[in-house]
Amino acid sequence: MLKLYYAPNTCALASHITLEEVGAPYSAERLDFRNNQQNSADYLKINPKGRVPALVTDGGVLTETPAILAFLAQSFPKAKLAPLDDPMAFAQVQSINSYLCSTVHVAHAHKQRGYRWATEETSFADMKRKIPESMTACFALIERDLLKGPWVMGEQYTICDPYLYTVGGWLEGDGVDLSRLPKVVAHRQRMEARPAVATVLAEEKA
Amino acid sequence: MLKLYYAPNTCALASHITLEEVGAPYSAERLDFRNNQQNSADYLKINPKGRVPALVTDGGVLTETPAILAFLAQSFPKAKLAPLDDPMAFAQVQSINSYLCSTVHVAHAHKQRGYRWATEETSFADMKRKIPESMTACFALIERDLLKGPWVMGEQYTICDPYLYTVGGWLEGDGVDLSRLPKVVAHRQRMEARPAVATVLAEEKA
Repeated sequence: MLKLYYAPNTCALASHITLEEVGAPYSAERLDFRNNQQNSADYLKINPKGRVPALVTDGGVLTETPAILAFLAQSFPKAKLAPLDDPMAFAQVQSINSYLCSTVHVAHAHKQRGYRWATEETSFADMKRKIPESMTACFALIERDLLKGPWVMGEQYTICDPYLYTVGGWLEGDGVDLSRLPKVVAHRQRMEARPAVATVLAEEKA
Repeated sequence: MLKLYYAPNTCALASHITLEEVGAPYSAERLDFRNNQQNSADYLKINPKGRVPALVTDGGVLTETPAILAFLAQSFPKAKLAPLDDPMAFAQVQSINSYLCSTVHVAHAHKQRGYRWATEETSFADMKRKIPESMTACFALIERDLLKGPWVMGEQYTICDPYLYTVGGWLEGDGVDLSRLPKVVAHRQRMEARPAVATVLAEEKA
């Protein structure tokens, strides 16, 4: 059985929603980030990176959101969460998820995790001030070029959707003006109407 | 025909090597980063992100290194650059490439591209001072946990190899002590013995 390690308000939400969407039997174990459980000796044996998500499978532990999402799409093809038979279309899915991972999530991370890339408090404060600008730029590109509608890739719901929803959930806290992002806001509402999303949100907020 | 936009000393090298490895007909066009050609009106029509690599295909433009590499592996299966028939093994390839993209490349980028995440010169200087520490931590994890040897995934050369080689090419400039990374150094030497790598290096350095 699949087991997901997650923490609320992290990017693990995308994997959590996708597990629920594919209908696979799975369990989800919450880590206590306030007590730094992600860096406990027990968890570092599972994921030496000390991060979430980590998906424990019969074939080993898998980390990194884009890899977990593609794995679930490929392992549960009946859920039709990616265009598996079309290398170019599949690559465009991967491209969006890679952008969300390496550019958008990274921009957001400078609000609370500046210590990964700098040392001084003045630098952390500078990074925090930049968040509204950098996240606004990321989402302007998403609104204009990436989100086709109604779902990210168009008519077909894919593994891009829970990931965009997850990262987009940080916008208010990051000081981004949502009135300029009507497609992103409509996408969020569409996501929250999905039973799988409601189920996972209820569990993560419990 | 495939066309790659690249610039020397960037992560586009991984896609460039992979194009050469698969034996596909392709052309490679160099952008002049010193004159900011990546943000020229002409190039922004190709890639609105203003970055490299961008791969122009018959089916559209593809960006983001992990997506380009997986696309080439899937489009040219005879080259056997990824375990395409095994979702878990393919996911582990994706996981490594995602880590290289979103953690290792990002750590490195704080040396020259701090303006993406901060505004003050003092912050940029702080970020630069942190590079040896953050890149050393990334490559300690790679040396210990990710690089199986002789290739990243073990006996089979995959799309992880040119990407690790590319990112690992920044280590000396980033002040990382290579004497603690014998597997990474041996991997680099193994890569440079490959004809495809030699061809691409000659072209990029010309």
